[in-house]
Amino acid sequence: MLFTDKLRAAQARANSWLCVGLDTDIAKIPAALRERDDAVVAFNRAIVEATGDVVCAYKPNLAFYLARGRAGMDALADTVAAIPRDIPVILDAKFGDIESSSQGYARFAFEVLGVDAVTVSPYLGADALAPFLAYEGRAIFVLAHTSNPSAQALQDAVVDGEPLYVRVARMAAALDGKAEAGLVVGATFPNQLRNVRQANPAAVFLIPGIGAQGGSLEETVAFGANAAGVGPVINASRSILYASGGDDYADAARAAAIKMRDEINLKRKT
Amino acid sequence: MLFTDKLRAAQARANSWLCVGLDTDIAKIPAALRERDDAVVAFNRAIVEATGDVVCAYKPNLAFYLARGRAGMDALADTVAAIPRDIPVILDAKFGDIESSSQGYARFAFEVLGVDAVTVSPYLGADALAPFLAYEGRAIFVLAHTSNPSAQALQDAVVDGEPLYVRVARMAAALDGKAEAGLVVGATFPNQLRNVRQANPAAVFLIPGIGAQGGSLEETVAFGANAAGVGPVINASRSILYASGGDDYADAARAAAIKMRDEINLKRKT
Repeated sequence: MLFTDKLRAAQARANSWLCVGLDTDIAKIPAALRERDDAVVAFNRAIVEATGDVVCAYKPNLAFYLARGRAGMDALADTVAAIPRDIPVILDAKFGDIESSSQGYARFAFEVLGVDAVTVSPYLGADALAPFLAYEGRAIFVLAHTSNPSAQALQDAVVDGEPLYVRVARMAAALDGKAEAGLVVGATFPNQLRNVRQANPAAVFLIPGIGAQGGSLEETVAFGANAAGVGPVINASRSILYASGGDDYADAARAAAIKMRDEINLKRKT
Repeated sequence: MLFTDKLRAAQARANSWLCVGLDTDIAKIPAALRERDDAVVAFNRAIVEATGDVVCAYKPNLAFYLARGRAGMDALADTVAAIPRDIPVILDAKFGDIESSSQGYARFAFEVLGVDAVTVSPYLGADALAPFLAYEGRAIFVLAHTSNPSAQALQDAVVDGEPLYVRVARMAAALDGKAEAGLVVGATFPNQLRNVRQANPAAVFLIPGIGAQGGSLEETVAFGANAAGVGPVINASRSILYASGGDDYADAARAAAIKMRDEINLKRKT
């Protein structure tokens, strides 16, 4: 089964293009929960239980778990294990290293954690991505244009008449392997999002920047789906995880996820 | 104390610009050791004891430890803890994410592990690097030109009349923070190494690609030191770690490290 097939089924089942980013910061979870040894996992588990029928994917970001050392890494493994198998999990790690190191990162993501996809950086070129592409049924999401303010410094530099991020989008289209190659395109740069879709009609998009970062939902929906009709994975983290700071955090997260899913779906119909 | 001061002292003490990359692959360490629960740490400890007076730094690569899950992450922490405090440790992780995630990676590197420096990717621009630069006495090494075969696909793309890696070298020179910003330049691309030095005379260089990857020692030595006379950190991993596959691995690693240090020093004098 291709990653795309799993994603497509999850999108249809939940009628949703929404992904919840499990970027759990222990300082931001409800005080009552914070005392527990397994605070982060308990929080994530409650979020997954409250939103599982509303999302098409989950995306934990490695940084939030590494920052807490061994406890954090255990929490990451336990979080991935708690997500139902039919919901794709994307590890956001932006890996990018030479081949022998990429093999280690691929093993960590696809064998140790057992996630379905991982984000990767294009800066080292294609050979750095090859080890990830050896895994059948999995996917990489190559950073094309990111959502942060200084993204443009390098990504929008013009090379042979086209911006670097467009070259990356074409490079991803030419990758060859058993795994699939999607692209990361931030919703905070709507023109770039459209240009990436033009340069790579086939790639599945992972789109951060909606929610707390204030990205545009119009372009996200208009250019998000690929030529085969697979919708984008539209990520929101803080606006859902911390919709309430109180004991009703799971209910509040569910309500925020439903609201965002429906906002996306409303745009899909117009 | 600046990172540069610590590095300079280590270089003077060992009369060495050599760094040993602790990219320990459990499949490649001597069979007798492999049976032990703490095989990787025992191997690394023996390597550090055998080479500590011959090197100016150690550089563990995160991928090799993450690939082994919890045991690997424990081994990484124990390895860093076993390195004498006066020898700089550079975590090779090529982190590059938006600011809130970079904060997590910086905390992992500088607080959880307590390393002196970390490698980072420039693809997201300056704001992704800011959290690392908040740490006084530490350093980042920004990827300018890497040592792998497909490095040129993006890094040598010409932007406004100059290659992208040169733009990165200038970007690193303009970074502002409490930590210092060095550059990663692979020895396998000698012309690029020279161009990076011209674009950024002040940066300390971390130079992989010597040893198993076959990079050029001439240019590494000729353009490696910065304007203040701080030498480059010249990394070799496999050629030293696996100099012997037998029980004499530590002695063989020491001999290989001395040989490489002396080869570097011979070039420094000519």
